[in-house]
Amino acid sequence: MCQLWLLLGAVICFLPVSVYLLENGLARTPPMGWLAWERFRCNTDCKNDPDNCISEQLFRTMTDLVVSQGYAAVGYQYINVDDCWLEKERNIHGQLVPDRQRFPSGMKSLADYVHAKGLKFGIYQDFGNYTCAGYPGILGYLQVDAETFGSWDVDYVKLDGCYAHPSEMDRGYPEFGYYLNQTGKAMVYSCSWPVYQIYAGMQPNYTAIIQHCNLWRNFDDIQDSWDSVQSIMDYYGNNQDTVVPNSGPGHWNDPDMLIIGNFGLSYEQSKTQMAIWAILAAPLLMSVDLRTIRPEYKAILQNKKIIAVDQDPLGIQGRRIYKHKGIEIWSRPITPLYQNYFSYAIAFVNRRTDGTPSDVAVTLKELGLVSPTGYRVEDLYEDVDYGVLTPQTKIKVKVNPSGVVILRADVQPDFNRRVP
Amino acid sequence: MCQLWLLLGAVICFLPVSVYLLENGLARTPPMGWLAWERFRCNTDCKNDPDNCISEQLFRTMTDLVVSQGYAAVGYQYINVDDCWLEKERNIHGQLVPDRQRFPSGMKSLADYVHAKGLKFGIYQDFGNYTCAGYPGILGYLQVDAETFGSWDVDYVKLDGCYAHPSEMDRGYPEFGYYLNQTGKAMVYSCSWPVYQIYAGMQPNYTAIIQHCNLWRNFDDIQDSWDSVQSIMDYYGNNQDTVVPNSGPGHWNDPDMLIIGNFGLSYEQSKTQMAIWAILAAPLLMSVDLRTIRPEYKAILQNKKIIAVDQDPLGIQGRRIYKHKGIEIWSRPITPLYQNYFSYAIAFVNRRTDGTPSDVAVTLKELGLVSPTGYRVEDLYEDVDYGVLTPQTKIKVKVNPSGVVILRADVQPDFNRRVP
Repeated sequence: MCQLWLLLGAVICFLPVSVYLLENGLARTPPMGWLAWERFRCNTDCKNDPDNCISEQLFRTMTDLVVSQGYAAVGYQYINVDDCWLEKERNIHGQLVPDRQRFPSGMKSLADYVHAKGLKFGIYQDFGNYTCAGYPGILGYLQVDAETFGSWDVDYVKLDGCYAHPSEMDRGYPEFGYYLNQTGKAMVYSCSWPVYQIYAGMQPNYTAIIQHCNLWRNFDDIQDSWDSVQSIMDYYGNNQDTVVPNSGPGHWNDPDMLIIGNFGLSYEQSKTQMAIWAILAAPLLMSVDLRTIRPEYKAILQNKKIIAVDQDPLGIQGRRIYKHKGIEIWSRPITPLYQNYFSYAIAFVNRRTDGTPSDVAVTLKELGLVSPTGYRVEDLYEDVDYGVLTPQTKIKVKVNPSGVVILRADVQPDFNRRVP
Repeated sequence: MCQLWLLLGAVICFLPVSVYLLENGLARTPPMGWLAWERFRCNTDCKNDPDNCISEQLFRTMTDLVVSQGYAAVGYQYINVDDCWLEKERNIHGQLVPDRQRFPSGMKSLADYVHAKGLKFGIYQDFGNYTCAGYPGILGYLQVDAETFGSWDVDYVKLDGCYAHPSEMDRGYPEFGYYLNQTGKAMVYSCSWPVYQIYAGMQPNYTAIIQHCNLWRNFDDIQDSWDSVQSIMDYYGNNQDTVVPNSGPGHWNDPDMLIIGNFGLSYEQSKTQMAIWAILAAPLLMSVDLRTIRPEYKAILQNKKIIAVDQDPLGIQGRRIYKHKGIEIWSRPITPLYQNYFSYAIAFVNRRTDGTPSDVAVTLKELGLVSPTGYRVEDLYEDVDYGVLTPQTKIKVKVNPSGVVILRADVQPDFNRRVP
């Protein structure tokens, strides 16, 4: 970065902001796809576990299934490699080399495979000296690595933050983003910038982060448990005044992967994760074995009505608007709008463990839905249409323990004012 | 009790032990059945929720399903009412009265219904002034209530300990057991005696508890969550030196209900609860809506091989024999025996949440399986027969996060010594 200024001199003194801005036109809605990490981790034992190790075969298989099993048709688009794809050493030109045993055809070939299926290809690196699993990081090689990714036709880069100084991230994340842009290949840029700074006790500069990243992690890695999902919900609920305003088309808070269909979540809990991630305008990155997922979990991941909430074009992240005795209500403004009134997705979550469903009764007005023209309300999991309700209408839902009821309330135009 | 001594005088000075001993010949293996509490709680709102409120209709429905859906055929036998079945006042004779709206036919009629289906009928009361939900307790009415239960042909009594002094339980629980015995109707006697004493900082007198109760609760009520199941596993593992020796035919530690098929456990976690409860020689009391349970959860509850472990005639409760980095191994000695060698059920539990299965490899010898004649080993969930293995054989299992692998190892007779 310093060298750049010295070389280019005064003529580009006005360029720093625009040079470093992301401006890749990508991720106008939260990215959707499949990401290896939560389910497959750093399993490199292809000898004893050939079907589950991190290898080109695994990604080709998942690519095939994303298309053949209908995930692509509902919007899942990215096939994302995570850590543990690299050789431990760069080549003599200082370039990254994929593991020769596990990715014998190389990453360009894998990207081509993914592209030929109509999908997009994502890769993982780390801003530090090493990736979290100890493979070579980009430090000292920002430009060459960005160029390598461009040459491989990569569509998405997740840049982790292990083995790096959080204080250097304010400089380094934009710099790598600059080199990504310089390749001429538009790549979604996923940053771990704020989470490592928060861990280090720093206050992230979200004004900068928004300008330089398409998405960013704010909190812990998700694990295969309801406790983990709940801790993430709590983080985004408790910190919503800080994080919600940063979200919007092109730049998203990332609460981490969907773990639906794995080992740790019940069916109810899985429905809750999907609903709350949609309220949060979260990237929807499945991390699950698509070969063995049970049909009821697949149906959650492919719920078009909830995906439509997640992908709402306004890109306004929702908020937790009520929390009392284990009952939470989350709300997100969505399209369509009528005059100054939004439509809304509303999720009722029961965090209680007392065995039997809880009733929640509330008027639309109490939820902030005050358009005198009323709202058409439907349940997004159950086939229930409430019809058009006024702000005074009290709706009553029965929420299962650790489960959710998610409604969509579309504001109605004023039919009385219509010209016949 | 004091009055009793005064009245009966010296002639029965030698009787206190035998008079008060349980000796009902019941529960030679851990009781199996269905119990309302965890799933249906104290829902008394039959007006708005007629299908789920605590009512004779609910118990009749569950009775029918226990039979028609095959639960009775694999050993589930008791249909147990829990709290909230009573009127708030006793009748003019001081007798308990079931809620007139919700149990209009009365408890004798319900018991008859259950018996006509070939099952047994259980009821709930509390040693204190009130039940936990505030209905009349037995204090001051021990004899009359025992007689009432006898007259209703009750087969099983759970006696809770809310609104009672734990220090009085050492006297009161045996006294009520005495009156139950006096009815001439044999009733399984389920006590909450130790758990309330432990909460009060007392050391339960298990020597007495074993003599007077068929089963007893040691720890917290189960809730609809994996956290709750894990806390119970931890309790019985951490306190096994105290509690395991108290278990045996006729007298069992009760880690509380099976919550399999409800809202909070994943499929893997459900398999883990069933396996560990069998290792613990636990009563198997399902608390689930049998009208809506999904078939894969029903299959867990009806797993005959695991039920056979639970019901093993030796009645020896198992132990946690290994715990390290989230991996636990639990072991229970079972039949058949050969010379001085037991057979075993062995459960491998993965408490980790890191997304991908963990390998566990161990020799039979390291598990304490040392018979030179070897063991026939099979997996009790998966259709895997390992054949006959020697103590030196290393077995390797892959355990899913929050999941279990449970094996049965039957000690082999010495074929070499067989007379041809």
